[in-house]
Amino acid sequence: MISDLEQIYSVSIKSQKKSAIRELLKLTQRPEIISFAGGLPAPESFPIEQLKEIACEILDNNGPAALQYGATEGVTDLRQILVDRYNAQGLNIELKNLVITTSSQQGLDLLAKIFINRGDKVICGLPSYLGGLGAFNAYGAEMIGIKFDDKGMRSDILEQKLEELKNQGLKPKFIYIIPDFQNPAGITMPESRRMEIIALAKKYDVLIVEDSPYREVRFEGKPQKTIFELDNSGQVILLGTFSKIFVPGFRIGWVVADERIIDKFVTAKQSTDLCTPTYNQMIAHKYIEKGYFDQNLKQIIAQYKDKRDNMLKAFREFMPEGVKWTEPEGGLFLFLTLPEHMDAEVLFKKAIEHDVAFVLGSVFHCDGSGKNTMRINFSFMSKEKTTEGVKRLAQAIKEEMGLA
Amino acid sequence: MISDLEQIYSVSIKSQKKSAIRELLKLTQRPEIISFAGGLPAPESFPIEQLKEIACEILDNNGPAALQYGATEGVTDLRQILVDRYNAQGLNIELKNLVITTSSQQGLDLLAKIFINRGDKVICGLPSYLGGLGAFNAYGAEMIGIKFDDKGMRSDILEQKLEELKNQGLKPKFIYIIPDFQNPAGITMPESRRMEIIALAKKYDVLIVEDSPYREVRFEGKPQKTIFELDNSGQVILLGTFSKIFVPGFRIGWVVADERIIDKFVTAKQSTDLCTPTYNQMIAHKYIEKGYFDQNLKQIIAQYKDKRDNMLKAFREFMPEGVKWTEPEGGLFLFLTLPEHMDAEVLFKKAIEHDVAFVLGSVFHCDGSGKNTMRINFSFMSKEKTTEGVKRLAQAIKEEMGLA
Repeated sequence: MISDLEQIYSVSIKSQKKSAIRELLKLTQRPEIISFAGGLPAPESFPIEQLKEIACEILDNNGPAALQYGATEGVTDLRQILVDRYNAQGLNIELKNLVITTSSQQGLDLLAKIFINRGDKVICGLPSYLGGLGAFNAYGAEMIGIKFDDKGMRSDILEQKLEELKNQGLKPKFIYIIPDFQNPAGITMPESRRMEIIALAKKYDVLIVEDSPYREVRFEGKPQKTIFELDNSGQVILLGTFSKIFVPGFRIGWVVADERIIDKFVTAKQSTDLCTPTYNQMIAHKYIEKGYFDQNLKQIIAQYKDKRDNMLKAFREFMPEGVKWTEPEGGLFLFLTLPEHMDAEVLFKKAIEHDVAFVLGSVFHCDGSGKNTMRINFSFMSKEKTTEGVKRLAQAIKEEMGLA
Repeated sequence: MISDLEQIYSVSIKSQKKSAIRELLKLTQRPEIISFAGGLPAPESFPIEQLKEIACEILDNNGPAALQYGATEGVTDLRQILVDRYNAQGLNIELKNLVITTSSQQGLDLLAKIFINRGDKVICGLPSYLGGLGAFNAYGAEMIGIKFDDKGMRSDILEQKLEELKNQGLKPKFIYIIPDFQNPAGITMPESRRMEIIALAKKYDVLIVEDSPYREVRFEGKPQKTIFELDNSGQVILLGTFSKIFVPGFRIGWVVADERIIDKFVTAKQSTDLCTPTYNQMIAHKYIEKGYFDQNLKQIIAQYKDKRDNMLKAFREFMPEGVKWTEPEGGLFLFLTLPEHMDAEVLFKKAIEHDVAFVLGSVFHCDGSGKNTMRINFSFMSKEKTTEGVKRLAQAIKEEMGLA
């Protein structure tokens, strides 16, 4: 072995830590633990029988192509059906505006590779999706966090920050937003706020990245237009994925953007993995084409709504005074806020003693704030376990509060 | 759209060009063209019936896990069976020494992310695999090319270059080597040369990256020990893939290295794609476990040997005096050298007129040399088309030589 291994690593990897969530998840894998920590979809939502049918059909009818290298852009049939679906929702895009990525996480990685030089500023929410922060951090982005209100990222603070940067001669590379059922906060940004953010992006000449993995998992209320649709000038980059609305194990995501930007994604993807698995893409296309996707999405929504309702009921029943939580209209997560003086990290250890787990809210805050917050997933656990888990969590909180 | 899109791209993407091969491949997709340009395995080698059986079996027996997110390190069963196979070949590794990657290209991307800061030196062969050059270039590596003889990378020039760098106070991050049936040169490095390179790596305290996608596709001659096995000190990082020995469409590769380095791969992979498709990994594991892999590999070897023999026969029959080519003992490629004064790019246009295609050798040379060389793939086309294609290519060469 060489003498100075620790010294020769890149600046990038030296600054990266193993994902706090994934490391915590390891702690929480004792079978007796009820975990609200992951972001896993419900395994009972996976369409196993339909996939068996399609998996064989593709091999029968299209085996050699399904098992071969594919185009870097992705399988044309899949791209086209995604384009058609977006256009039916009110977007106005063409094939050249969409590239398939090997998971939405790869979309974030390529985005960073395309835009970020070490030291560049990127604006994100407080809180914001950890995988996004991790991807941007790997390329040396300096994250600027903007506080939330109940409509998501506050536009007044955003404007102030953009103005401040402008006065320093700086411009962030993009504003990173998860507008629907935000991970981790569970908040959906109303159209008025979306319009305010678009107006600021235009005024300060900055791209918006709209990360949208949960949008189709809406339980109630009016679907919001995507920021991409509201802007309509090519200033928004939209990221999508099958992970929460079909299966995560295929690792298929996509990016929608101006043709010139998609072209850069294709170039960056060539040296990153050449192409996304062809077989998986063909299965996903067939799954939509056969109508299974729309059928099953309704069931996923019904299941998750039921699970959310059940969790909220348990929260109301068991949580002590002073604990607050979001009540998301969709998605997989809600966000819990403890009284200001409490520390979720201390609580985490107590919770593990009670065989229940969650994720620290602070890991989603690029400035290390949010010490008294927690992300709670409601999609994975059964209703019975959820009720029991909330009970245990409430007990742990009460003990930390000195109430029990 | 923002006003200065072209300006805000990263230094990385500005320096990247779309892969010359993939762009050329588009030109060569007219159905009448006989293309030796790609690096595609033979579709007739894909085990479609066996995969149908396994694809259903996995969904029946292990569906929920197969469709869920998986560990970043990869599916344990697959990692273990790969470790066992390596150990049976003489390596001495454990589970902690192997991580699954989403294609070997991702292995190269992560490798670059872990080790390369902009401006770092990396040593490669003249010629060298284009995807490696592309991945390293994306992170700003400055490539130093070392000329080949018939044993691969010349160790005398390597030593001279390492000494030169040392005198400048510089040390390359690694030496990038494809020791078996090199892409594009088709050359296999004998053990003596491997030992010389290891000795130099030790003397100058530099890592070796052993990219090994073709090693198992050996038609004849004695299998060479991997550089990883010959070193045995943890100084070598070994990259493997299923693309040429099973199917490329699943995008599964792996990296074998010292535990500390694997740990960095896992960290870097978390922000890059979280995990490799679980379903694909489980299928690959089952495919090996059932013995299909070993059965079919024998057939792939027999097929490709037959195709190589057929191509060499056509070369001997049709090529004019002054054209030279390698006669590889395995793999998918051979390398053709035109007389010094000829330009393969001029020939390429002529060849396309004759409905036959190849890849310019110069794209594999980081210093732009190799103008009179060409890479020829023999795994993809049928024997009939190969013979006809070589005839056309020879005709185009003769015309360029003024012989016809």
